Amino acid sequence: MKITVLGAGAMGSLFSGYMSRNNDVTVVDVSETMVNAIRNNGVRIREKDGSITECRPNAVLSTEGIGLQDLVVVFVKSMFTIPALETNRHLIGPDTYLMTLQNGAGHESKLLRFADRKHVIIGSTQHNSSVIQAGFVNHGGSGVTSIGLLDGCSDVLQPIAENLTSCGFECHTENNVQKQVWKKLFTNTAASSLTALFQVPLGFIHSDPNANWLMRQLCREAVEVANSLGLGFDLDEVVGDVDRVCINAPNGYTSIYADIRDGRRSEVDTISGSVIEAAHDQNIQVPYHEMVVKCIHALENKNKESK
Amino acid sequence: MKITVLGAGAMGSLFSGYMSRNNDVTVVDVSETMVNAIRNNGVRIREKDGSITECRPNAVLSTEGIGLQDLVVVFVKSMFTIPALETNRHLIGPDTYLMTLQNGAGHESKLLRFADRKHVIIGSTQHNSSVIQAGFVNHGGSGVTSIGLLDGCSDVLQPIAENLTSCGFECHTENNVQKQVWKKLFTNTAASSLTALFQVPLGFIHSDPNANWLMRQLCREAVEVANSLGLGFDLDEVVGDVDRVCINAPNGYTSIYADIRDGRRSEVDTISGSVIEAAHDQNIQVPYHEMVVKCIHALENKNKESK
Repeated sequence: MKITVLGAGAMGSLFSGYMSRNNDVTVVDVSETMVNAIRNNGVRIREKDGSITECRPNAVLSTEGIGLQDLVVVFVKSMFTIPALETNRHLIGPDTYLMTLQNGAGHESKLLRFADRKHVIIGSTQHNSSVIQAGFVNHGGSGVTSIGLLDGCSDVLQPIAENLTSCGFECHTENNVQKQVWKKLFTNTAASSLTALFQVPLGFIHSDPNANWLMRQLCREAVEVANSLGLGFDLDEVVGDVDRVCINAPNGYTSIYADIRDGRRSEVDTISGSVIEAAHDQNIQVPYHEMVVKCIHALENKNKESK
Repeated sequence: MKITVLGAGAMGSLFSGYMSRNNDVTVVDVSETMVNAIRNNGVRIREKDGSITECRPNAVLSTEGIGLQDLVVVFVKSMFTIPALETNRHLIGPDTYLMTLQNGAGHESKLLRFADRKHVIIGSTQHNSSVIQAGFVNHGGSGVTSIGLLDGCSDVLQPIAENLTSCGFECHTENNVQKQVWKKLFTNTAASSLTALFQVPLGFIHSDPNANWLMRQLCREAVEVANSLGLGFDLDEVVGDVDRVCINAPNGYTSIYADIRDGRRSEVDTISGSVIEAAHDQNIQVPYHEMVVKCIHALENKNKESK
C-alpha cells in the first residue's frame, strides 16, 4: 500500500517505521530536525528487550508530487489535525482511507471534512511510544490495535488490518470500534488525569477513597456522554474496569503525570477535553471534567513558571 | 463578665487571654498538656512586634461547679462543637449568650440546640493566631471583630462589643452579621482552598487564568447558596472582592496551604464543607466545592503517607 503518516512524533515514528516493512511509506513533518534525522539514520525503535529496530520510511517536509495514497494516518497533535490535512489534501482521493488512532475521542469529525464516512477509520492502539531524540523512539508497550468504520461494516478493512498485523501491529477490525475508543478514554480521563492532578502513581486512585470517589464521578460524566452517543456503557462496569487498571499497575506513572511533574504542556485537552467537547455537543453538564482540565492547566503553568 | 471559652487552641488561647484582662475568664480543654501549660505559665501571646503578652485566665479540664456564665465562646474545632456544649451545658442559663466566631458558616444551627435565637451570637474576626506550643500562640494579624444576632436587632450586644474592645478586640455589632460571615467565607472557600490544591501563594489565584476561572466558579456556587439564605450578594462584586485579596497579598501563603504542604489535616471541611452542607439543606448543586473538598482530602492523605 501507499501510505503517508502525518507527524513524525513518538507514535508517527513508530507506525511509519513498522509499516515501512511491507509498504511504501512516507512520513511528513514540519520539523527539519525530525525529517533530516530519519533521512540520515532511518527511524530507530528501542524495543522492550533493549534491542534497536531500524526502519527506512521516506521522510519529507512536503508531500507535494507524491500522488494519491491508499491510506493517510493522522498522528499529529489533535490541534494540528485540520491544518495537517489541509496541507496534504492532494494525497486524498475518493478511495483513500483516512485513519486516526489519536488519544481521546471525536477526532473523526475533523477527518470527515476530508473523506466520506466509508473512508474514515477510527481506532485505538495499546502500543505506546515516547521520543528519545529526533527519529529515535522508545517502544514502551505493545498490545492490540482495533480499527473500524464509523457505521460498522468494518470487514472491508480486513486487508488493512492484515497489512498492519504483518508489519508488527496485531490488528483487529471491530464493528463497534467507537466503544473501544471510549473504553480507552475512560481510563485516561478518569484515572490518568487524577494521577497528574495529585502527582501520584495509579495505585493511589484505587487506594485513596477521595481519589476513588473522584474517579467514579469522572466515569459517571464520561459514561453519560458516551451513552448519549448511543454506546450503551454500564457505569459500574466502567468504574470496575478503570479501578482494575489502577489495581494492576499500582506503581505505574502515567505520561500526563510526568508532563505535569516536568512542567510540560500535557495532553489533557485531547483526553478530558474531548469528553467536554462531546458533552457540549450533547448539551450535557460535565463540571468535574471542566474542573480537572482547568486544574491541570493551572499546574502546567505553575510548574513551567517554577522551572 | 463571667466568660467560659471552650477550647484552648490557637484562637481559644488568644481570646481567653485577652478577655481575661477585664473579665472572669475560664478556658476549658480536654488536653491536660494545654491546661497545665496555661496553669503554670498563663497564656503567652507573641505579638507582631515580637513582644510577648502574658495573660492569666483560669484553665480547667472540667467546668463542673463554676456556675452559670454570662458568655460562652465556642472555639473548638467544628466537629467538636456539639459534644463540647453537651459537656458544658450546666454553664448555660436563660440569660447566657453563646458565641461562635469559628471559620465557615452555619455553626449557629449547633448553638441553637443550647440557647434561643436571642442568645446565639455569630460573627467573624480578622484576628488570627497559630499555636507555637501549648499555651503559647503567635498573634499573626489583627483587625475588626463583628458580632450580631441571627435576627438583627444586635444593639443589645453593645455591652459585649465594648467589653471585647476594652480587652483589645476592636468589636462592632452588626445587624446583618451573617453577611460578614459569608464575606469572609467567600475568600476562604474560593481562594484559600485553591492555594492548598495547587500549593501556590494567593497571587497565583489572580494571575493564572485557569485558577482565576476556578475561583469564579467557586464564588458562583457559594453566592448561590448565600443568596438562597436571603443574603443578596452580587456575584461580580464578590469575585472582585476575592480577587482583590489575592492581588493585595500576592506572596501570601494561607494556613490551609501550609496544612497540605506539611501533611496535616486541613480545615477544608469547616470552610468549603460548610458551603456544601448549606447547599444540601437548600437543595443546590455545588460540584466544584465537592471536588475541591475531595481533592484536598486526597492531598492530605498523600502527604501524610509520604511523611
